[in-house]
Order: sequence, then C-alpha cells, then structure tokens
Amino acid sequence: MNKKYNFAIVGALGKVGTEMTRILEASSLPINSVTLMDLPRFAGERVTFRGEELSVVAAEEKSFRGVDIAFFSAGGEASKELAPLANKAGCLVIDNSAAFRMDPQVPLVVPEVNPRDVEWHRGIIANPNCSTIQMVVVLKPLHDAYTIKRVVVSTYQAVSGTGKAAVDELEQQIRDHVKGETLSWEVYPHQIAFNALPHIDIFQENLYTKEEMKMVHETHKMLDESIKVTATTVRIPVVVGHSESVNIETEKPFALKELRQLLSKAPGVVVEDDPFRNIYPLALKAAGRDEVFVGRIRRDDTIPNGINLWIVADNLRKGAALNAVQIAELIIKEELVRVP
Amino acid sequence: MNKKYNFAIVGALGKVGTEMTRILEASSLPINSVTLMDLPRFAGERVTFRGEELSVVAAEEKSFRGVDIAFFSAGGEASKELAPLANKAGCLVIDNSAAFRMDPQVPLVVPEVNPRDVEWHRGIIANPNCSTIQMVVVLKPLHDAYTIKRVVVSTYQAVSGTGKAAVDELEQQIRDHVKGETLSWEVYPHQIAFNALPHIDIFQENLYTKEEMKMVHETHKMLDESIKVTATTVRIPVVVGHSESVNIETEKPFALKELRQLLSKAPGVVVEDDPFRNIYPLALKAAGRDEVFVGRIRRDDTIPNGINLWIVADNLRKGAALNAVQIAELIIKEELVRVP
Repeated sequence: MNKKYNFAIVGALGKVGTEMTRILEASSLPINSVTLMDLPRFAGERVTFRGEELSVVAAEEKSFRGVDIAFFSAGGEASKELAPLANKAGCLVIDNSAAFRMDPQVPLVVPEVNPRDVEWHRGIIANPNCSTIQMVVVLKPLHDAYTIKRVVVSTYQAVSGTGKAAVDELEQQIRDHVKGETLSWEVYPHQIAFNALPHIDIFQENLYTKEEMKMVHETHKMLDESIKVTATTVRIPVVVGHSESVNIETEKPFALKELRQLLSKAPGVVVEDDPFRNIYPLALKAAGRDEVFVGRIRRDDTIPNGINLWIVADNLRKGAALNAVQIAELIIKEELVRVP
Repeated sequence: MNKKYNFAIVGALGKVGTEMTRILEASSLPINSVTLMDLPRFAGERVTFRGEELSVVAAEEKSFRGVDIAFFSAGGEASKELAPLANKAGCLVIDNSAAFRMDPQVPLVVPEVNPRDVEWHRGIIANPNCSTIQMVVVLKPLHDAYTIKRVVVSTYQAVSGTGKAAVDELEQQIRDHVKGETLSWEVYPHQIAFNALPHIDIFQENLYTKEEMKMVHETHKMLDESIKVTATTVRIPVVVGHSESVNIETEKPFALKELRQLLSKAPGVVVEDDPFRNIYPLALKAAGRDEVFVGRIRRDDTIPNGINLWIVADNLRKGAALNAVQIAELIIKEELVRVP
C-alpha cells in the first residue's frame, strides 16, 4: 500500500493545468514523479514543483511511457487524440475535457456524488463540467433525503472558465476602460467587461447552449436520470468563482432547519448563510478554496416542496483541477490504477 | 387640449433624476416649465435644460406651488415627507421610490401593463421597481395569451440601480485594481468588482431580500395575484442595464413560433433572438435604449408548458425615469392631471 505513482499533467501551462500543478504540489497523493506536458512548442519551458525545476515535455505517445496517471486539461481535441495513446502506454487518464463525458464506456465522477462509478473505468475517467460539479455536490444530499424532481438553474460564471486568454481579455478591457480607450475583444463575441453574456459554449439545435445541456446530461449521468434540469448559463465579468442561483423542487417535504443541517454535514459542502450579517457565498471568497459554498437557503413557497439556493465554488479548483485530483485519490485508495 | 404643464423633478441631481431631466428634455410632453429640486444644500446649482440654464431649488412645500406634475426620485424618506406637501399645493406626484408602491390607495403603473389603474389615483402614482418593470412588460402579453402560473427569476443587476455612489465605487475599485492597489468599499457590504452579490436591498424575516419580494408583490399588484413568483436578485459589476433569467410556466399550451410573434408585437418589447449569429439581449446594448429586450427564447421541456427567457433593459430609463415620463404622458392624455 506504500506504492508511489508517476503522474503527468497534459496542458500543464494552461489555466487549469497551472492550478492542477499547484493542487498536486499540495496534495497528499503518493507521488513518485510528475511529468508536465504541453504543446511541442512549449517543450523545455520550466515550472517549479515542490522546489524542483521541471522541464515541460511535448505531449506525445512516448511521453506517457512509465506514467501511471495523467491529468488531461488541453481541450477536447487533444484528449481525443492523446488519451487512447496514453492508455496504450498503460497510463490511466483523468480527463477534464468534454470529449468523453457522455461516453457510456467512461465513468463521469464527482467523488462526493458517485464514487462507485470509478470501479467500471476502462482507462479513462471523465471530470465533469465546472458548473455541473458544484451543483451536484449540493444536490446529492438533498436528492438522497428528499428526492429532487426538478431544478431551474441560472449561472454567473467566471471568465477563467474559458481560459487564460479570456482572463487577459477582461483585464485588457478593464485597463482600456480606465485609460478611456476603445475596448476590443476576440475571445468572446461581445465585450465582457461591464456586461453579462447569456452564451457559454456553442448553441445547439434546441436553442440551448452546450454548457446548458452539459448541466442537464451530466446531472443525469452522475446523479439520477429522473431529475429534470433546465439551465441558463451566463458569463459575467468575474475572474475566478462560479455562482449559481438554483431553484429546486423535491418529492418529499422537508423542514428548512433539517435541510440546512443536512447540507452543513454534506461532504465537500460549507454552509455560509447568515444574511443579516451579510454572510452568503461569494465568488471572491470562494476563489482559492476547495469546498462548495451554499447560502441564501430559503423556502420557495410557490410550490409545495421548493427551495432556493445560492451555490458558489472556485471553478478552477473544485470545478476542475481539484476534482480531478480527488478522483486520483479515490482510484489509488480503491487500487484501481490500471488500464484493462 | 393644448394645455401646457408645469413639471418638477425632485432629486434632480441624482442618478435617476439626471436621466429624468434628459428624458424630459427629449420628450414630446407639453411642457410649460420645469423646476429642478434637490436637497437645500444643492440649491443654486445649475443644470442645462433645452439650452437654458435652470437653477436647482430646495425641495420644500412652497417650491411645489404652481407645479402640475412632480417626478420624485429622492428616496423613500423624501417621498413620504414631501409627496403630501406637493399634493397639498395641488401638484400630482409620480413617485419612483418604494414609499407608496404597495399602498392600496396608490396605483402602481407600467403603461404597457395596467394603464387603466391611473384612473383611480388620488394625487400619487407609484413607479414600480426597476427589476419588476422590465419583467412585467414581457409577462403581460404572455399572461394574456397563455395564463402564467409560476415564474422563477434570477437577476443580474447593474450598480447604477443603487445610485451614483455605487457607480463611483465600482469605477474606483476597477482603477485600484489596474493600479495594483488594495480595493475598498462602503456602498456595498462586499467588493463588487469581479464579484456577484446575492444581496439587493435589505433582508426580510422570510430570508428573501426586499428587492426579491418587490418582484413578487409588484407583479401581483399590477398583473395578477394568482401568478406565483420566486426571485433571486443579484448585483453584478455592470454599470447600466439589468438582465434577468426568467423561467415561466403557463396554464395553456403554446407554439414557440406563435409565442415569439406575440412578443415581437408586444408594446415596448423588442425581440433580439438569433443565437447562431450571437444575437441576444445584452446590458451594454440596452443601455440608453427605451425598450425592453427579450431573447434566448426557448422551450423548457421539464414541465408541460415551460419557457426560458433572457430579459434586458436600461434600469435607469424603462426601469425608472422613462416609465415615470410615460405615466405622465398617459395621465395627460386621459386628462387626469389633478389632485382630488
């Protein structure tokens, strides 16, 4: 049980990859080695890991030899191309992209929600979308206790979810605004500073965005297909921390006090809910934290068993890198580090 | 019918008062004179109106003599104190504060929604809250056609709704951020730049904010008490333009195409909905405009007759000053300019 593992991070220089490196550094995972991979043109760049300088290598088949677990955060195309090669080299893949999430052969896992699903992995385990992760961590204990029938969610998502270029774009617009200069944009189809864009990922035939449908399908896959979910996902000028306004209808009745206690005991959840002292979850407070924060807990009396919640988490940590590391902890504990 | 009227603006130097002056300037109202009023300490300040310099006078009883219609935007306390004095001087009050909105003796009016309610005024007509106005303008045609049962709304509200000091606070935080200095705040209980605050107006015993309950009660008063409304109101770092994610359940079934046509013909409403060309309502585009914009129109199939909408308007214009001027147009047209 004292085996140490060789890890890799693919897309190590990206927004999530950087966060992944930091979380891995601070984790208690049994690390033997860490290989940082990115596009060939970044090969040779140096990143400090636990005081040691690591040299970035090109993400290609031979780089995966000897690696036990690779965290992928280099986008869907890279995952589709490289994950099978990593598997062939005997390396287990924990993938942060959308490439395999809805693949029936690939478990989609939030350790607080559906840990047993890691058992049937065939070499790839998918990390859910950021906006889904923080929601299902809170829905899970409520569903177990009261059986959720329907969820109406509106999101307030940070630009770091789009990546480094989007953070730079917001910062540049802010600087240009202060200088009184004309603002410009490339990453988003409209100005993001001082605006709210009801458009995350691409639009589907049904007029919902892909991001909105991820919240529906991923909740079904991880939690329960019978939960009805409708979502409106919106990008706002926040750098880190996704917020969500979530309206929930349950089958069974609940006492508000009991529901609150249930949430305060739920794994990975912190209740921040003292409105008369101005205490409620906030993107800026959640940034850099591991937990999912929930507050503004109040009964919606327009339906028999209704509840309104405000759910906030660091989209780069629990929404991405941290959840991936927690999946790794789980598969190591369950001794499932293998490619069948 | 060619009578011209004497108007006054109370709180003329505030955020809404300034907008009011501009809208009055551009309006086709039959104006004989305009008196700008504010706190005594601002008396003597000069404001240009249609090329003429007007001198601000102290808002006190004698200032209302000879005034036919006064627009109040100086906060609830000023309205409570001064509206009865204005009435005593024979001046009709159109009040933008929350002071009289739920008073059963005072009509609460959005001209596109409940114009007939002006008929029973007794000297004061209340202008609804900004977040309610833009929502009911869109709900009205849908309710007439399909009977709305329930509304779940989450808002994305601009800081100008709080007033000038809040706009200055956001701008100062943005400047300090660019300079790399420590950010500070006074108007809001937390930093508003790069954040989302689920807290607008004060918290009530039922754990909802007053802003959230305004959306419930004002919708009931103007549209229909049988419409169930639950709201989460959130302040975001936008200067002008409130956005709203609105989920609606109707009694009667609808065809999506027909519903869209209905909205495109509704008074005061503009449909902006071509997502594949990145066209949807945006706060920055709505700023400075008179209409309420609606887009992201799509069926919510988690319930039999469900619809999701994204509704955006200029919170200072249709959300406040413009609606008040439209009420004045209505009472002049209906020959109801009198204090009974």
